[in-house]
Amino acid sequence: MNKRIGRFHVLTDLRFQQRFSHAELACLAAQGGADTIQFRQKSGSVRNMLAEAKRAASVCRDRGVPFLVNDRLDVALACRADGIHLGQQDFPVREARRILGPEAIIGGTVTTVEEVLAMQEAGADYVGFGPVFPTTSKDNPAPVKGVTNLAQVCKAVRIPVIAIAGISLERIGPVIRAGAHGVAVMTGVTTAENPARAARAFREELDAVITGYSD
Amino acid sequence: MNKRIGRFHVLTDLRFQQRFSHAELACLAAQGGADTIQFRQKSGSVRNMLAEAKRAASVCRDRGVPFLVNDRLDVALACRADGIHLGQQDFPVREARRILGPEAIIGGTVTTVEEVLAMQEAGADYVGFGPVFPTTSKDNPAPVKGVTNLAQVCKAVRIPVIAIAGISLERIGPVIRAGAHGVAVMTGVTTAENPARAARAFREELDAVITGYSD
Repeated sequence: MNKRIGRFHVLTDLRFQQRFSHAELACLAAQGGADTIQFRQKSGSVRNMLAEAKRAASVCRDRGVPFLVNDRLDVALACRADGIHLGQQDFPVREARRILGPEAIIGGTVTTVEEVLAMQEAGADYVGFGPVFPTTSKDNPAPVKGVTNLAQVCKAVRIPVIAIAGISLERIGPVIRAGAHGVAVMTGVTTAENPARAARAFREELDAVITGYSD
Repeated sequence: MNKRIGRFHVLTDLRFQQRFSHAELACLAAQGGADTIQFRQKSGSVRNMLAEAKRAASVCRDRGVPFLVNDRLDVALACRADGIHLGQQDFPVREARRILGPEAIIGGTVTTVEEVLAMQEAGADYVGFGPVFPTTSKDNPAPVKGVTNLAQVCKAVRIPVIAIAGISLERIGPVIRAGAHGVAVMTGVTTAENPARAARAFREELDAVITGYSD
């Protein structure tokens, strides 16, 4: 199986803005060039979450953009998501694989080389490593890892590493050159005045760095 | 398919006692005669919840007692639970059925005749109706329904109605005579000095009322 893991993940989370719904953010991000949408909702009722996730999943299906759900496997199943993104305290990857099957995209957040290797061993399709840079969107963020640790992790594993936390336009070059497959962005897109335009800027920088034109 | 719905559901919830784990409570309750265990954990990490649920599920399998998980379908799938118990703000019954399949026991909490009928229509195997009596184990309980409303609901549906909230030994007679199939008990068992003995007392009273000896 050859699962294509996106290079530009946008997380739809409503904690830092309420102008747009998950589906609207997914649409705007995809319009700007996001190639993976991760639906993240940590509060409110499951029934509401499911309704939101279904609308966002539908937008992503229409656009052919992989749609991942954060944490809740049951919501991922119900909205026929393409996969799941798991934290260290969420479902173990093996259990998730057993429930979602071999075709699902399963990734997770890791903060150490040990966790990266364990997640690869458990069958994850990608890892999100970080926080590479300081972030304001977590209440108790783990210590910042920096680009050096990112490079170490990228060397240690075969699966794609997505750099997370504090990713700005200027930081795309350094993280890609450190070996990251791509980046995950939340507020950099969702709280931008024009999310589609913000996503487009990330996409262009990413493409430029990857194809080496900006090196 | 003929799913046997238990008459004496015990909810394992650790908010009101921490002497016993879910698995221990399940064991003690089953020992006392509980014929359904509902695992309920509303806080903490999913990883921890899953580990606890697996241990409790294993105890129930060993004893041949149906094991239901509250709210989380993914946890129910991962620990191979017999079914799920859903609140009005959890997964809709139809979605749950689609994910868990026809053999799963699916029930849910309802507080009005309309909700009961909707849940029956959606394919639930049973409903938990209440609060029949005042309860201290919910922060914002719905208004108390009383035995008269319980009787009305029991007449309105074909599926078994389990009376919930404030169920004491003396109240088993009235709720069963009102048409309830059985009762769900939490603190009445879990915070009792001797949970197995407390469960035994409920079981005996229930059996006595059902077979008419105490009428």
